Amino acid sequence: MTDFFKDIPAITYQGADSTNEFAYRHYDPNEMLDGKSMADHLRFAVAYWHSFAWPGGDPFGGPTFERPWFGDTMELAKMKADVAFEMFRILGQPYYCWHDADVRPEGATMAESRSRMEEMTDYLGLKMESTGTKLLWGTANLFSHRRFMAGAATNPDPEVFAYSAATVKYCMDATLKLGGENYVLWGGREGYETLLNTDLKREREQAGSFLCLTVDYAKKIGFKGNILIEPKPQEPTKHQYDYDVATVYGFLKDFGLEKEVKVNIEQGHAILAGHSFEHELATAAALGILGSIDMNRNDYQSGWDTDQFPNSVPEVALAYYEILKNGGFTTGGTNFDAKLRRQSLDPQDLILAHAGAFDICARGYKAAAAMLKDGSLEKAREARYAGWDTPEAKAMLCLSLEEIAERVERDNVQPEPVSGRQERLENIVSRFV
Amino acid sequence: MTDFFKDIPAITYQGADSTNEFAYRHYDPNEMLDGKSMADHLRFAVAYWHSFAWPGGDPFGGPTFERPWFGDTMELAKMKADVAFEMFRILGQPYYCWHDADVRPEGATMAESRSRMEEMTDYLGLKMESTGTKLLWGTANLFSHRRFMAGAATNPDPEVFAYSAATVKYCMDATLKLGGENYVLWGGREGYETLLNTDLKREREQAGSFLCLTVDYAKKIGFKGNILIEPKPQEPTKHQYDYDVATVYGFLKDFGLEKEVKVNIEQGHAILAGHSFEHELATAAALGILGSIDMNRNDYQSGWDTDQFPNSVPEVALAYYEILKNGGFTTGGTNFDAKLRRQSLDPQDLILAHAGAFDICARGYKAAAAMLKDGSLEKAREARYAGWDTPEAKAMLCLSLEEIAERVERDNVQPEPVSGRQERLENIVSRFV
Amino acid sequence: MTDFFKDIPAITYQGADSTNEFAYRHYDPNEMLDGKSMADHLRFAVAYWHSFAWPGGDPFGGPTFERPWFGDTMELAKMKADVAFEMFRILGQPYYCWHDADVRPEGATMAESRSRMEEMTDYLGLKMESTGTKLLWGTANLFSHRRFMAGAATNPDPEVFAYSAATVKYCMDATLKLGGENYVLWGGREGYETLLNTDLKREREQAGSFLCLTVDYAKKIGFKGNILIEPKPQEPTKHQYDYDVATVYGFLKDFGLEKEVKVNIEQGHAILAGHSFEHELATAAALGILGSIDMNRNDYQSGWDTDQFPNSVPEVALAYYEILKNGGFTTGGTNFDAKLRRQSLDPQDLILAHAGAFDICARGYKAAAAMLKDGSLEKAREARYAGWDTPEAKAMLCLSLEEIAERVERDNVQPEPVSGRQERLENIVSRFV
Amino acid sequence: MTDFFKDIPAITYQGADSTNEFAYRHYDPNEMLDGKSMADHLRFAVAYWHSFAWPGGDPFGGPTFERPWFGDTMELAKMKADVAFEMFRILGQPYYCWHDADVRPEGATMAESRSRMEEMTDYLGLKMESTGTKLLWGTANLFSHRRFMAGAATNPDPEVFAYSAATVKYCMDATLKLGGENYVLWGGREGYETLLNTDLKREREQAGSFLCLTVDYAKKIGFKGNILIEPKPQEPTKHQYDYDVATVYGFLKDFGLEKEVKVNIEQGHAILAGHSFEHELATAAALGILGSIDMNRNDYQSGWDTDQFPNSVPEVALAYYEILKNGGFTTGGTNFDAKLRRQSLDPQDLILAHAGAFDICARGYKAAAAMLKDGSLEKAREARYAGWDTPEAKAMLCLSLEEIAERVERDNVQPEPVSGRQERLENIVSRFV
Repeated sequence: MTDFFKDIPAITYQGADSTNEFAYRHYDPNEMLDGKSMADHLRFAVAYWHSFAWPGGDPFGGPTFERPWFGDTMELAKMKADVAFEMFRILGQPYYCWHDADVRPEGATMAESRSRMEEMTDYLGLKMESTGTKLLWGTANLFSHRRFMAGAATNPDPEVFAYSAATVKYCMDATLKLGGENYVLWGGREGYETLLNTDLKREREQAGSFLCLTVDYAKKIGFKGNILIEPKPQEPTKHQYDYDVATVYGFLKDFGLEKEVKVNIEQGHAILAGHSFEHELATAAALGILGSIDMNRNDYQSGWDTDQFPNSVPEVALAYYEILKNGGFTTGGTNFDAKLRRQSLDPQDLILAHAGAFDICARGYKAAAAMLKDGSLEKAREARYAGWDTPEAKAMLCLSLEEIAERVERDNVQPEPVSGRQERLENIVSRFV
Repeated sequence: MTDFFKDIPAITYQGADSTNEFAYRHYDPNEMLDGKSMADHLRFAVAYWHSFAWPGGDPFGGPTFERPWFGDTMELAKMKADVAFEMFRILGQPYYCWHDADVRPEGATMAESRSRMEEMTDYLGLKMESTGTKLLWGTANLFSHRRFMAGAATNPDPEVFAYSAATVKYCMDATLKLGGENYVLWGGREGYETLLNTDLKREREQAGSFLCLTVDYAKKIGFKGNILIEPKPQEPTKHQYDYDVATVYGFLKDFGLEKEVKVNIEQGHAILAGHSFEHELATAAALGILGSIDMNRNDYQSGWDTDQFPNSVPEVALAYYEILKNGGFTTGGTNFDAKLRRQSLDPQDLILAHAGAFDICARGYKAAAAMLKDGSLEKAREARYAGWDTPEAKAMLCLSLEEIAERVERDNVQPEPVSGRQERLENIVSRFV
Repeated sequence: MTDFFKDIPAITYQGADSTNEFAYRHYDPNEMLDGKSMADHLRFAVAYWHSFAWPGGDPFGGPTFERPWFGDTMELAKMKADVAFEMFRILGQPYYCWHDADVRPEGATMAESRSRMEEMTDYLGLKMESTGTKLLWGTANLFSHRRFMAGAATNPDPEVFAYSAATVKYCMDATLKLGGENYVLWGGREGYETLLNTDLKREREQAGSFLCLTVDYAKKIGFKGNILIEPKPQEPTKHQYDYDVATVYGFLKDFGLEKEVKVNIEQGHAILAGHSFEHELATAAALGILGSIDMNRNDYQSGWDTDQFPNSVPEVALAYYEILKNGGFTTGGTNFDAKLRRQSLDPQDLILAHAGAFDICARGYKAAAAMLKDGSLEKAREARYAGWDTPEAKAMLCLSLEEIAERVERDNVQPEPVSGRQERLENIVSRFV
Repeated sequence: MTDFFKDIPAITYQGADSTNEFAYRHYDPNEMLDGKSMADHLRFAVAYWHSFAWPGGDPFGGPTFERPWFGDTMELAKMKADVAFEMFRILGQPYYCWHDADVRPEGATMAESRSRMEEMTDYLGLKMESTGTKLLWGTANLFSHRRFMAGAATNPDPEVFAYSAATVKYCMDATLKLGGENYVLWGGREGYETLLNTDLKREREQAGSFLCLTVDYAKKIGFKGNILIEPKPQEPTKHQYDYDVATVYGFLKDFGLEKEVKVNIEQGHAILAGHSFEHELATAAALGILGSIDMNRNDYQSGWDTDQFPNSVPEVALAYYEILKNGGFTTGGTNFDAKLRRQSLDPQDLILAHAGAFDICARGYKAAAAMLKDGSLEKAREARYAGWDTPEAKAMLCLSLEEIAERVERDNVQPEPVSGRQERLENIVSRFV
């Protein structure tokens, strides 16, 4: 055991009235809901990168965090893993997620990077075994190193494509070995800075080829989890190709992958794309590609990715409502792709940020489940579309435009507007959140 | 001839040195460029609605324009048409566009609305014949009347779907009759105000059915033009289903219509969706669905559709550059979906706004053509991707992930970043605009 | 009694467990908090304009509401008042607010408009007397009529300034007569569409003169309430002069009015200006000009004024927290400057929207009061700045730059960063909301 | 001479027809305009930080630039200066600007940092003497080091205030010694991340005290230049106190500094605050605090500070038009606070970016001067407000509200709206850009 979190107790459920900062007030992992524990419903995961690899810098300032494990050696990488699993023990969440670059120092060559990843995979595997923490997903960092500055799969240089392919291969190998339940691709720099030097069509083809290779490889090695694309509209690049869920869907359709690949939707990315989080979730559900979520929040007044811990029960509840309507998580889960504010320097900040977020999510999830059980919203929704369930309405879709037009004139159709009742429905939601 | 524009002369080309306000300084319709006149290149169209039907209101104030033709009678509708064609004569642009609601007063029944549309179609046809002005596209207004408040094709009430279908039918009939070169569908209220009362999946199916019916009908009646969807991300609704080009593409793919339907891209809608205009154009070109454009500009500091006349040659040039790279317009054209500021009360404002916009577009178009002819940008672009044209790069795409990975390690691939040269390319553009 | 709201019962407090839609679940007007009733704490006001004058139009569509009192006669204006007070009876809120244009039809001349306002003032006065509903504030509509299209006080035409002055005079007279507790000026079109035709400096002087005249008149007639400016950054104009609280403060300072005039802060306007609501409230409190609030919410994904009813307790609580830290409302209150969605056609929608909003505000207010009582946030805040309360720190402010610099070198000052604890503080807030 | 820019020739003016990439096509420093050279009109300055200190990182990736002078020694700092002045020689611009942190490596103590700054000041002084390059302004970097993470002057820790004061002292000393014509304060982290831990009022007082100390010190040491605050609305913090020009003005008024301090306005910061660049310039001019500009451009589709080189003549022309109306620059100038895209790796990119920007600015400036000389815009503006120059209008401002109201009724004042002619005015601008 490291002493980074010394004096910080394991967080346990103590009920809503507790004023203990180091306690769950709403998240009781063992609480049963519809025959499943809250832990199994919510499937919380901690993101290795924000919590253990990010030094607190921003575009106008250097690192603020001074962690004992910062550095480029394998020894420090293992200390980092030790601290991470220490935190997992304190929080007790069932899952975590990583990029290769979070867990191993970059090697001088691909071979060295891979072999370090393998060594760290073994190290992590042992820790997972002894603690029971599982891997929600693995992913490759194809955006931080300068070699990726013009993209990975969509790079104008085919050697970067090759390098990226080799990286994804070993990351997927590691994910499989550690029993990861999903594999994520976030197109960090798959996009452009200026159209002036960009061949959109060519880069789109490259991205399609890369995804096909990845799907094929996953099948070949027997990876049973879901492959997930994580949409984001921009940042770091001016335009990211995986702009939002609807854009990713069109891309998947084009390459015949809409049954093979799903999406990992992040709240902050939805906001940056001009959508609500629930919109992106509902869209993915409607298109059959809802996979997993990155739960965070984006400051509504900031135009960049702020990756804050969630703190709004009403918002979280609406998100989980869409997930529950879609049947809840299968391989997916709630990954906290959230980082401390750079002024939150202390070890306890890491713990409190996660504990608070777990509670917010538990409240939101339970509210969503209660709303669904209550049924008022769904009943109102069905009533609103009831006209479409009549034989006449169904028959209409087999007619032609002129046959419909003829009937409209013959019957002097004059549709009367009906109240949409938005405020009433919002009141219903307010009863639960 | 009406006297609305009395004392305003027909606008003619007088050269860049002219200080005559009522003259074209850059748009010479007869100027030949690559064997085609500028009129045929640019294919300018005036939008009937903004110029003749909009009364100058906004969410905080009533009408400011007091036009003699405002009112609900057929007589006034004909006066409106007279004034419109008077303006077309003054401007000399080859095309115009309409919604049904712009050209005829709403009837008490569908039959009356249709019959009024037919009467106005005849009236417009005669005027078109005598003046030579052509119809770039027709479209149906399925958003202003309260019956459409919850959508047209995507309305929860199937009778509104029916009503909308009948409306599209007679609008397409009118478009065909007047020789319209395209038919446009802008999903004015095809979207939602709140997810709480919305069934996304169902509404998407409805929209797909409606589009299929429309495409079938167009074929049946022998309409040879393009059917175009006009994307917009929001406004009037919180979320519009045809969010942007990429979203529309996914929708078309889903219903097997990506070869049947193209897009009409508006600058202002691109901006509201978080894209540059040239991005939307380049995306549509890459996806093979670039049809026509609505040329206007959106105030970058305003979060709603400002529909201003274009005034930036650098921006217009980049837009036309994408269009020219795609081979220029075929059935499409440059429709000015732009409206006067509501303080621009005078008849001459209407003329000057269009004349200024024509000049901006002519300058931008000629600059774009010159950039393309110069070839520096395309040469640089090709050089940037040259690596992908090698046999090795092509062969890589037939390999598997592990074969690529093996080569990366074997050859110790270490890709070196290459300058993207954005500023240099921007300097090249600046030489032309 | 009208029958517009027939069958809708008066809304009473029935407790949090009630599932009656027509009940308050959290707002009990008689509940005592720190020796004052909730009614007196929150001081709810209904906005006459959104609820009774707005017909449901938007920039892309006409009216959706068909109210029996719509029209231009005094008789209809009185029917409107009857319905309004019927709603006030049902809701039981203590206050309401109006513009002149909401309550009386425009006359053919200023004299007629004024005399109609006087007649309606008498009519409203009788209703107020009999029901006990009070006037939180009155205001003049200086933006809807086309005469105001280029501004009121800041119009290039001095006759519009004069017309506006006369309007404010009779509106303030009416406010005084009805015992209004504040008088509000929202600069609807005090701003510009383009700098090209605008003299910023001149218009600022005009606005300053107008405000001085208004303050003088209020004093002269013995108006004891607060005069409030309502900031908004844009819409309807491209740029509104009263952009945000900080901008208004600079303006007031310039004309020596910072002790005479306060601000009425709207949530939606704060959002459109790139601020959180609590930021604007905290800024006004710090500058000593916090007057009253317009409680609504703006859709975070829409770039225009959406004026929705509030539905987020966490957000409302943070707003009231700033108000409570400032000592709570004095003459100000919580005006619901919120409108139904245009699809919410039914009388019951009006009632439910307000009832839901009252409950949200009551929950938020009680949470804010509890947070303040708990004291954890304030204790943490004070501890953070404790260093500034030492004699050394105070003394430093009497030194010069070089004396401070000398000490820094002499003592080798090396400030150590201290955690800002944002997540911990957010957790504290979450305990209350 | 270093060999960083080897083979890159000094850039000279070669006329608009030149296709030489390493030439000015529009910026001829010696061209005379109204009796002053273009060099003296535009007063171009290169920003030391972006060009020589920024390594190309962003929030998602590390450095991309690999400059031979990167590192922490004084030797490397001098090499950096050598390269910088080499670039200044190639570009031939008259000015440059720095932060202390750009030119000297941080010392272990304040004393060491200061003494290194003094050594570098001497070194820079010699280079300036030999090349003729002058200092437009100096400034202190009070935001990059972690000690400033919670602000400099507004830090909760008074020792950070002291440290910042000492830093400003030596930076102002260095600025004076090098003949700097202005001293700039950009409030990098003077703002907050969350209101929950912030005392707005206290921090505002601290900022006021700090500014007073700075102004006093400048006077004491005989600094004759202008002290300039640079507004920015947010980033790095959620809210920056110096939000925009109007906000800074209110702050200056509060501390009685509106005659002592002016503003340095950046295009990108204006955009992020929801304003056009020309708005901020016109506002500062109207308030009498226009000092200097940071010329760059912000991507309209990106919500963070993109600091790109300007490339739009129409936009630049409108900005310079406001500056010229205000009498042109006095101590201020055109500082290029613009950085290469992180993919623009090569030495020539640095040169071309600046050369292209100089040309854009020269075109914009000459267009602005021509518009002003032409006089059409100003004539139209004056005509629009002509009513206010009549004796009646002037007399009105000496009346009271009721006297004005009386006249309005007596004379039956009915103001008629007049066209604002926005499109016509935009056409006039288009003739020049």
